[in-house]
Amino acid sequence: MEQYLTRLPFWEMLTKGEQELVRGGASLLRYKKGAFVHSGGSECVGVLLLLEGEIRTFLLSDEGREVTLFRLYPGGLCVLSATCVIDQITFEVQMTAQHDVKALAIPAGITAALKERNIRVRCFLYELAIQRFSDVMWSMQQILFKGLDRRLADFLLAEQERTGSGAIRMTHEQIARHISSAREAVARMLKRFSEDGMVELQRGAVILRDMDALKKLS
Amino acid sequence: MEQYLTRLPFWEMLTKGEQELVRGGASLLRYKKGAFVHSGGSECVGVLLLLEGEIRTFLLSDEGREVTLFRLYPGGLCVLSATCVIDQITFEVQMTAQHDVKALAIPAGITAALKERNIRVRCFLYELAIQRFSDVMWSMQQILFKGLDRRLADFLLAEQERTGSGAIRMTHEQIARHISSAREAVARMLKRFSEDGMVELQRGAVILRDMDALKKLS
Repeated sequence: MEQYLTRLPFWEMLTKGEQELVRGGASLLRYKKGAFVHSGGSECVGVLLLLEGEIRTFLLSDEGREVTLFRLYPGGLCVLSATCVIDQITFEVQMTAQHDVKALAIPAGITAALKERNIRVRCFLYELAIQRFSDVMWSMQQILFKGLDRRLADFLLAEQERTGSGAIRMTHEQIARHISSAREAVARMLKRFSEDGMVELQRGAVILRDMDALKKLS
Repeated sequence: MEQYLTRLPFWEMLTKGEQELVRGGASLLRYKKGAFVHSGGSECVGVLLLLEGEIRTFLLSDEGREVTLFRLYPGGLCVLSATCVIDQITFEVQMTAQHDVKALAIPAGITAALKERNIRVRCFLYELAIQRFSDVMWSMQQILFKGLDRRLADFLLAEQERTGSGAIRMTHEQIARHISSAREAVARMLKRFSEDGMVELQRGAVILRDMDALKKLS
């Protein structure tokens, strides 16, 4: 446990007493792929330090439509799962495990106590929340304003950057979900991209062929 | 000047030296109705305390489409006009004066110094930014997903048609039930409508004021 606790980015800001408090309340949580990590209406799980897997944060409409806001990878600290502790946040997000997740959880009550007692921790949590919001606003702007061709090119380039590979191994359905579009729309746009020689379509993968053209679009 | 400085919500958090710094750098700015107060690309004006008038914050697309995010009234402190000081914010918003504006400006350099030197001020600015973001997210969610603006406009126009009167005599609760929404959501959206001059809110009634704007939404 101790090795995980010291990975908390605010661990060194804590007094001995506060570290003791966290040590006493922290726990390891596991979520199976597809499981809900946090849901707007449900009780608040607290701050999560992602140790393994991937968490996807999204908005959910009454009709079940989803808009992906951002994804969290190992080492990432999740504050939106502690919205019950940050009074200023009044909207609801959903989080699911994209792969099996292992996370260190600091319960809401303890997070609230730290935030109350330690202004450096409070400041740190706010700063992180602002960063996430800024990401979210960026996503929203993409969706509201940007054309699908551009969004698709953006996503392919970002995936290439993230994975270091020009072969994006995802189905059209998965890509569509990531860029908040429909499978058919993505399939059509990918076909156009391949006709333009920008990508090559293989079974279960999109191979990037003309980075310059994609970058021009993005 | 002194009377305005003491209205700054973080004035009492400052040391004498910091107050002196702010006193030396603050200035009164005036913007004519319609003028740009802040534009994503332009230089950063710093933190603004609105003294008179109204500032509208919105997103602007490449094609010139606008989405209003929130409005600021006298007494309101604007932190998004100081995005150059908050590194975490990476997206761009626009601000214009909706009416002639008079504002107290704390320049970016001084804001940055305060943020660096005084953790209470830093925390306060972050908290404010989070509050604004939360409002923004709420608006986005309603508009993108629930079409709440559209549903509400539809309902108001249908009621006007049905009753032959531009005064819809219903409580927010009743309206919410008719369009399958929540009272709080309807109240917030009606407030937005009234800020946009589309309706006037009276006790127990909603008066339709700008039919063209409502029809455009619907």
